[in-house]
Formats: sequence, C-alpha cells, structure tokens
Amino acid sequence: MSQTMGRVWSPVITPFTAELAPDGERFVAQCRWLLDNDVGLAVFGTNSEANSLSVEEKIGLLDFLIENGIPAERLMPGTGACALPDTVAQTRHAVAKGVEGVLMLPPFYYKGVSDEGLFRYFSEVIERVGDDRLRIYLYHIPPVSQVPLSLALIERLLKAYPNNVVGVKDSSGDWSNTLAMIDSFSADGFQVYAGSEHFLLQTLRAGGAGCISATANVNPGPIAALAKTWHAANADDQQAELTGTRKLFERFPMIPALKAATARYSDVEQWSRLRPPLVELNEQQRDELFALLDDASFDMPGLKQS
Amino acid sequence: MSQTMGRVWSPVITPFTAELAPDGERFVAQCRWLLDNDVGLAVFGTNSEANSLSVEEKIGLLDFLIENGIPAERLMPGTGACALPDTVAQTRHAVAKGVEGVLMLPPFYYKGVSDEGLFRYFSEVIERVGDDRLRIYLYHIPPVSQVPLSLALIERLLKAYPNNVVGVKDSSGDWSNTLAMIDSFSADGFQVYAGSEHFLLQTLRAGGAGCISATANVNPGPIAALAKTWHAANADDQQAELTGTRKLFERFPMIPALKAATARYSDVEQWSRLRPPLVELNEQQRDELFALLDDASFDMPGLKQS
Repeated sequence: MSQTMGRVWSPVITPFTAELAPDGERFVAQCRWLLDNDVGLAVFGTNSEANSLSVEEKIGLLDFLIENGIPAERLMPGTGACALPDTVAQTRHAVAKGVEGVLMLPPFYYKGVSDEGLFRYFSEVIERVGDDRLRIYLYHIPPVSQVPLSLALIERLLKAYPNNVVGVKDSSGDWSNTLAMIDSFSADGFQVYAGSEHFLLQTLRAGGAGCISATANVNPGPIAALAKTWHAANADDQQAELTGTRKLFERFPMIPALKAATARYSDVEQWSRLRPPLVELNEQQRDELFALLDDASFDMPGLKQS
Repeated sequence: MSQTMGRVWSPVITPFTAELAPDGERFVAQCRWLLDNDVGLAVFGTNSEANSLSVEEKIGLLDFLIENGIPAERLMPGTGACALPDTVAQTRHAVAKGVEGVLMLPPFYYKGVSDEGLFRYFSEVIERVGDDRLRIYLYHIPPVSQVPLSLALIERLLKAYPNNVVGVKDSSGDWSNTLAMIDSFSADGFQVYAGSEHFLLQTLRAGGAGCISATANVNPGPIAALAKTWHAANADDQQAELTGTRKLFERFPMIPALKAATARYSDVEQWSRLRPPLVELNEQQRDELFALLDDASFDMPGLKQS
C-alpha cells in the first residue's frame, strides 16, 4: 500500500441472536461484506458494543472470524478493558493470532486518573504481553471513556515503546487535537486516525493515516474510495458527500441507527437488536431515518445476507 | 438486629502482591479485622479497585474468603460490570454462596443511556440469575460511573422485582437525592445507604439503613458505634468526630490514602500498593497524611497483621 494512500477501518457492529448471544455466522458475513468494500475490521470497538461483551465472547468471536477465513492482517480488535488482566488476555490472544494491531482503550472506570497511572497501566500490558509483534493503537475517546489520553502520555509511551505503540484513534471530535497529534508524532511513522470520516480529508492532508469510523459500517465503499483518491480533483466533493451521509446518521443514537440501517438493507431484522443497556431505535426514529435515507438515495449495495 | 439499628459496610480495600496479584491471605485477615469492628464486607466496591480485577479474580477471592471462615451473610460483593454476562456470572456465583446481597453498578461504558435500557439490563440480570435468594442493592455513583440511576428507574425496578431489588447505595454526595430515595421508597423496607459516614446520622434519622463508606476501611469501630447508638444523647458529637476523621482522608486521593494508612497501622508495607491506573500517594502526600493523623491521635487498633 502506498504511503500516500489513506486507510479506513470499520468498528464492526455485532449481531445478536434472540437470546442476546453474539451470532458468529452473521458476524463473519458482515466482515466479508466490509472487506469487499475495502475497509479493515476494527472489531470490538465502541460501535461493536464491545464493552457489553465478556472477554470469553470476544476471544471466541475473534477465533471464529479467523477460522472462517477472515484474514488476521485485516483485523484491529479492541482489547482495552478496565482490568489489567482482561486487557492482557485479550491482547495476547489477538497478537498470537497475527492481527494487524489492537485498538486499546485506557482503563475507564476511575476518572481523573494521572498520566503516571495510565503510563504504568499500558507499560504493564506491553511488558506482560511481551511480544515483538504487538502493535498498539491507542484509543482516545473522552466523550465515552471519560478518560482522555494526553499528548504528554502518548509521547512518553512512544519514547518507551517505539515498536509497540504505533498509532492512535482520536474520537474526541476536536480537530485541533487530531492535528496536534499528527504534528507531534506522525513524522516518525506514528499513525493518527480520525474517529470520523467527517475529518478524513483534513486528516490525510495533514499527514494522518485515515479514519476509523462508526459510519464505515454503513457507507464503507465511498469512504474507502476517498481514502484512496484523496489527491484527486474531486476530493472535496467526495468529502462533502461523505459528511452529508454521516450527518443523517448523527441525528439519531448512532449504534441503533447503524443497526437499523443494516437490518433494512440486509433484509435481516435480527440486525436491529442491541444488548442492554443500549436499545434499538423506536418506530418513529426508524421511520424518520429510513425516510431520510430514501431521500438521499442511500444504499448498502451487496449487503443482502438472507 | 433491631430495626432502629443502623448498619455499616466497608468496601474492603484489596491487597496486591509485588506481581500485582490479589493476596488472598492478607484479604482474609483484613476482613476479619473489619468484622471484629462490627462492619459488614462490601467487597469488590469502588474502593476495592474491583473494576481493576477480572471476573475470575473476584470469583476466586470470594470463594477464598468463605473457605477461610468469613460468614457469607456478612458479605455484600460488588457484581456489576459493563457486560451482561459478567454481571450475571458474578451475581449467580455470589448468590449461590449465600451472601447477604450484591451491590450492583449499572453498566458504565456507554454514557447517556436511557432508563429503558438500564431497566432491560437489570431485568435480564435478575431473570438470568433466576434465584429467589437474589438481593440487589443498586449502586448509584455518578461521579465515577457517570451513569446515574434515576428515581423513576428505581421505582420501576421495585415494582417489577420487589423481592430482588432491596436497597441502594447513594454515592452521589447529594443529600437531597439520598433523602428523596428514602422518602420515596423506604417505607416499604427498601434500604437506603449513604455512600459516606458524613451522612450517617442524617440518613438514620430520615429512615435510611446506614452507610457503605470508603473510610469504614480505616475507622470502622467508631462508625459502627454511631450506627448502633444513634438515638443516644451524644450522637451529634459522635457524628462530628467521624466527619472530622473523614475530612482528613478527603484531602488526598481516597483509595491510595486508605491504603497508605492501612500499611502504616498494620506495619505491612504491601498494603500501600495499587493496581494501575491508580497510583500510591507520593512521599509528600504520605508524610502530610501521617502528620494529620498523628495530630488527630488517629489509630487503627488491633490491625497489626505481620
């Protein structure tokens, strides 16, 4: 892949059975469709309801994906948990499976923790996994985790573990922060991903790596296309299109909206199910979303799975 | 126990070895000392660093306590996790062991979740555990969890599961909220615990059950004494003493301060260790805390464990 080409990852939504168990077969099919649309698989992200899954469920699902032919090098599973042993177990397993890297939340129960505490935490994970193949993408998502990752912390981690700490996903929604990350660390190959395709073109122009975005679950092809052709004359027009679609989804609770659209365009009603504490769109929200999508001639081509 | 007697629980701090593993023997000794001081054992609470422990570690520690003679009916383990299966597994195990009840956090990764989503979550837990002996104390601690439990949610849960939802711990620090919980639900036997002994006398006078408090780890005897004698003439004086001691600890990060004091008065330096992302007090903080405790003639009588 050329250095000047951007990369896009989807935090893959997780399908549940009527008993609220993860549905492995359906998950594999979704991952295949996303790969066909040229986006990588950031499974077990926020939009995957990953923190509503147990460690065992996530390890089982990752194994199932790989056993069913999903290439490990196209996977970037989320492995960060509150408890050190959980993060170590999931990370060690993912690395042993040969994944491209892991997307790692900070421990997110305690608030107002110090950079020193977070540094010790990530250090312990890296030392305990103890594998040269470990590639960590740090996951900065203060609106949800409420535990931000400071530039000073990233700098310290990069200095201590330059081969293991290889990038970051910035889901702060604050472009000045994304830019500061790029300006501070990207020159040496550190990969800064925007947390939304809203910032994709800006990120790539500034020297960032691409995006890892919720809406890459529903609009993967066009987002991946911009990442590849961002030097093209029509890049700004492409970006405007992507942002327009994104904004439709942002009118609703994001994860239920992604699942409602996936249910609709796949013709698989099961997709609309979420694990508590998240809930599906109500009827009115769903009708409103679908009307907006129809108005925009939105589609998810090739998704039909039934 | 007389209805007019208050109850006090300690969210027992968790000892770690040099390898950051929980130290079962040390944990048992601490629990015995707390029981000798008449406080119950709310193990695996916020102050226990419970969310820094894996499900397996917590299940193992609970088994170890009971195997070593800690009475199950004096235990109120925290069992609430982000993922439904983790909460169900820990709750089912604790109930099977015959604990007095479980203290249950809401799932705390996603923020801004609906009462409907939280209701479904707790309902699923109750239905899946499916045991008449299940007694849930809801855990309202918005400053840390960032996921509050509304009065409307509690009312709905109480109506649906009157035998399983038996109380709440209010760690909001907002007395008007604690009072509203008492006024709304206590007449029917619902037990409202304040999250700090700062509110102990107020809580008992208003009709609440007592307190579950961080500083019951270091000052258990006097707190338990007030809970028993709150009708006495000197109750306000006792409360003022308790509050004074509490305020000394509140000048520092609470969990490291509890552990530093426990290390000092037990003569077991190991107690000062925390699991990342939490860190111990620095030298200056520790010296300052110890000087304040000396000035106040503070002690933890009978704690020496070495």
